[in-house]
Amino acid sequence: MKLARATFTPGVLGGPGFFGGMFELPGGYLKPVLVSSCDGVGTKLKIASVMGKHDTVGMDIVNHSVDDILTCGAAPLFFLDYIAMGKLDSALVADIVKGLSTACQEVGCALIGGETAEMPGLYHGKDYDLAGFIVGIVEKDRIVNGLTIKPGDAVLGLPSSGLHTNGYSLARRVLGETPEALSKVYPGFDRSIGEVLLAPHVSYFKTLQPVMSDVKGLAHITGGGFTDNIPRSLPEGVSVRINTGTWDVPPVFELIQSLGQVAPEEMFRVFNMGIGMTVFVDPSHVSTMLAAMPQARVIGEVTAEAGRKVEIV
Amino acid sequence: MKLARATFTPGVLGGPGFFGGMFELPGGYLKPVLVSSCDGVGTKLKIASVMGKHDTVGMDIVNHSVDDILTCGAAPLFFLDYIAMGKLDSALVADIVKGLSTACQEVGCALIGGETAEMPGLYHGKDYDLAGFIVGIVEKDRIVNGLTIKPGDAVLGLPSSGLHTNGYSLARRVLGETPEALSKVYPGFDRSIGEVLLAPHVSYFKTLQPVMSDVKGLAHITGGGFTDNIPRSLPEGVSVRINTGTWDVPPVFELIQSLGQVAPEEMFRVFNMGIGMTVFVDPSHVSTMLAAMPQARVIGEVTAEAGRKVEIV
Repeated sequence: MKLARATFTPGVLGGPGFFGGMFELPGGYLKPVLVSSCDGVGTKLKIASVMGKHDTVGMDIVNHSVDDILTCGAAPLFFLDYIAMGKLDSALVADIVKGLSTACQEVGCALIGGETAEMPGLYHGKDYDLAGFIVGIVEKDRIVNGLTIKPGDAVLGLPSSGLHTNGYSLARRVLGETPEALSKVYPGFDRSIGEVLLAPHVSYFKTLQPVMSDVKGLAHITGGGFTDNIPRSLPEGVSVRINTGTWDVPPVFELIQSLGQVAPEEMFRVFNMGIGMTVFVDPSHVSTMLAAMPQARVIGEVTAEAGRKVEIV
Repeated sequence: MKLARATFTPGVLGGPGFFGGMFELPGGYLKPVLVSSCDGVGTKLKIASVMGKHDTVGMDIVNHSVDDILTCGAAPLFFLDYIAMGKLDSALVADIVKGLSTACQEVGCALIGGETAEMPGLYHGKDYDLAGFIVGIVEKDRIVNGLTIKPGDAVLGLPSSGLHTNGYSLARRVLGETPEALSKVYPGFDRSIGEVLLAPHVSYFKTLQPVMSDVKGLAHITGGGFTDNIPRSLPEGVSVRINTGTWDVPPVFELIQSLGQVAPEEMFRVFNMGIGMTVFVDPSHVSTMLAAMPQARVIGEVTAEAGRKVEIV
């Protein structure tokens, strides 16, 4: 069984008979490049199911997708979702779509369509899956690709709200995932660990869009943490040194590290450790960047060492 | 766990650090409109799992998506897939991606990215889900929208290869879904019913693209059969009469109808009954259309009855 998504935003043409839509390309681009991404929320969905709260995962998948294409300098155009469950639960779908809508509106992205698939026998009980597809646009000569990053450039970090959408397998193993485990309020926290774990993925579009012309490269810290995501943004012949202690690691990471006795290097390979996006800039632009983004911190620098390594000191 | 899709086609720019890609918009469009769709394969996946054959569902999701946006007159640009399973099975993923690639290449669509999500606890045993997302393009004044359809217009039908991607819940209930049930070769068939059920969704792009300027409207016969899909393509004030007997209903539908004692109207509401796409054309264009598409049949006509009804006689 399939349901068309009811939410359409202005700018979207008509409503065809399938679960997508038509979107007129905005004018003013000389060589428009479309940037697209597909992703899922992963096992953060399990936390949402136990907590019975489903709007934040809707925000997660949109914000994650927006941040992914932002690493190329792209502005979001439209988004489609795929929701699959065993038996249609309209209230649950409405909650998810509420989160999708909120996050799309925040960045001016059309929620152009989506599909809700009812697949008994594949999804059990209250289980469901949620994936998202985004398309954005960037002028060809404004693509952010990291090619001009050179030794001496600064690495800025923008704060995350928590785990975002990665590391939930390890987090669930360490913290548990029963209603009792997730309702626990640990010392130093003002809410349950379940609520802490559901904090929505931060969207960096509005923060970075105004300063994008001074950005040389971006790394969205998702699955694989600092270790896997930063090298993909670097050109040959350089590496990056990250100076821990230049930002406050949120308590949830310290809790997982301590309870699970996780090695520090493993923490940086699995989690964002409080930094959701790293921004590579020329040293001469650091002060204007920090003035425009007061939440940013200089967390490291680009070094002349070959091999696109990430050294965490 | 996430895996980047390895297959990129020429025309795609670079490979960013996320599971999507960059696609430079083709030139020559005055007012380019992007047409997108998101869909899943549904419980046809269950048949694929039992049969241990996974390339055809890859073709299914691409062809289904291509046909969806084709109903607006759009040509495919690029496709992304979402594959989710409990534990990564590389051979299974390779089979699916082989099908995706084959179908994309067939219509010149870039397989630009995708995600493989490993979600233990959500997907059990060999279960997996597969969804797809397509973006195509059409010049704004060439959008096919059915608005000029009028009484007396002809309804052409293009043959399907079988169930395509809809009606599998009913088919599985009637035919069974054990290995024994699916390996059965029914009288009059030259292969097992499992193989018959896995026949890939037909892509109509190459057939319809050359004659698109004479097409007034299109209905892709998917979930909801004739009954739900045709009305969405019609303007106010008309209806459609379909003349059964003008085409050969494939034996698989007769088998399901007979074994399941399914009422004829239910068959037309659930299945495509051998017609995967209906094409609305002016009567003066019928002979040239049939010459260009020898596999097409005139299966009905547009009537002056209000209500966008579908009468099957």
